[in-house]
Amino acid sequence: MTTFSETTAVSPLGEGRYRAELGDAFGFETKPGGPVVLNGGYLMAVLMRAAVAESEHEHPVSTAVSFLRPGLPGPAEVVVERRREGRTASMLRASLVQGGEPLLDALVTTGTLDPDAKPAYVGEQPPMPAPEDCPPPGRARPKKGFPAQVDMRFDPAVMGWLDGDFTGRPEMRAHVRLQDGDDPDPYVLALAIDALIPVVTNAGFPGWSPTVELTWHLRALPAPGWLAVHGTGRMVNDGWSDENVEIWDAAGNLVAQSRQLARAARTRK
Amino acid sequence: MTTFSETTAVSPLGEGRYRAELGDAFGFETKPGGPVVLNGGYLMAVLMRAAVAESEHEHPVSTAVSFLRPGLPGPAEVVVERRREGRTASMLRASLVQGGEPLLDALVTTGTLDPDAKPAYVGEQPPMPAPEDCPPPGRARPKKGFPAQVDMRFDPAVMGWLDGDFTGRPEMRAHVRLQDGDDPDPYVLALAIDALIPVVTNAGFPGWSPTVELTWHLRALPAPGWLAVHGTGRMVNDGWSDENVEIWDAAGNLVAQSRQLARAARTRK
Repeated sequence: MTTFSETTAVSPLGEGRYRAELGDAFGFETKPGGPVVLNGGYLMAVLMRAAVAESEHEHPVSTAVSFLRPGLPGPAEVVVERRREGRTASMLRASLVQGGEPLLDALVTTGTLDPDAKPAYVGEQPPMPAPEDCPPPGRARPKKGFPAQVDMRFDPAVMGWLDGDFTGRPEMRAHVRLQDGDDPDPYVLALAIDALIPVVTNAGFPGWSPTVELTWHLRALPAPGWLAVHGTGRMVNDGWSDENVEIWDAAGNLVAQSRQLARAARTRK
Repeated sequence: MTTFSETTAVSPLGEGRYRAELGDAFGFETKPGGPVVLNGGYLMAVLMRAAVAESEHEHPVSTAVSFLRPGLPGPAEVVVERRREGRTASMLRASLVQGGEPLLDALVTTGTLDPDAKPAYVGEQPPMPAPEDCPPPGRARPKKGFPAQVDMRFDPAVMGWLDGDFTGRPEMRAHVRLQDGDDPDPYVLALAIDALIPVVTNAGFPGWSPTVELTWHLRALPAPGWLAVHGTGRMVNDGWSDENVEIWDAAGNLVAQSRQLARAARTRK
């Protein structure tokens, strides 16, 4: 099994350029045996590794990404520009490029988080049953690519849609961990934050929902163990939807927040 | 009185470059009679005008901004790169530059929204008293710059902090409109979405809270009248805070959503 840290590695080429070899481990077949399209969070993690390597700070505290084109397995390059260096935060621009075309454009802010910081204020974690009360998907799933690499235990309360029983609200939630045993780190969070079945599914819009823009913030360094990934949405309008995700770690800390803007089907099921 | 649309105008210089003359109307004096620092939402609106001018679509549906340096009144330039053109969405990179240094780096996605679209799903507007039940600020405020241009009527329930009575949660909300009579449009929304007193004030962290990154999505075209601006936060940790804002228009539609990551004081008042 390819580990996530191996398949997101980048190597410096100098002058802010980094080489990546995109694997197919975190991809989805577009049809059985067909071409593989790579998960957006995986692509984001590759890009973030290059941005952090180029920075004097250790952690990607904020990452905003435009998703321009789908990524395919094969060689790619990350081009990073340092835009401002600061003692507490540095800003970079980064692009993941394949075949001469940008796949992702990003703004990355790096900083150095204190692993022992205690929140001065934190809201409440929304409710979710424990991992042992969230069964693995009961339906046969392909055991290739992303579904084979990412162990997801969905809250049964949001999975009735498989039998046509939508909750009626944009929501989705699951416990997530990597099958390869890699513990959560900021790059695993980048994968987890875009790993859910789209929240609009439960508002009655299953299927196609490509991410256009996703911004996420690393709020604390995650503890080992399951990640509780809570997704909600506020509106589906004019073919656009929002998806808001919080990740809470196994120690009960809020570690990541995101919002993405995605396209959505115009007609409800 | 300078109108907002006049003072955010840009003129094309060719090859994706736009000239702007940053006025002091939407600035704050750093001390009485001292240098003026410009509001971040104002700078964002200037940048967005250039990005939309460079695009074949009409509306800035998503804007992600890194705030690198404060902006000062005077000449500036916006440099725009088209990165992908699509039938429903186009992506651009844009930077607002002053004195050879970038102030704001941005990722902008443009699209063309249907003014008559009706949401297929929308959540509930959080409660806020009507504008007539939200008095203008009772304390003497300087009538120069931003406070003279932007009419803000704060919900009295979140303003006890002026007398040391913090609500204990990151929250702030106000009705907002321009004094110049300009009706809300996507650029006025860019101003309004970063106009509140920082939400962390009510968690006991008044004062300094500079925005590091702000991403916002235009979800619908706003109706004329007051904008209800609802701000909340989820966590203050390790010197970083998040601020989440929704804007609802006078017709009761959710028109904009944002999250920003900001620095916050480390000690509570």
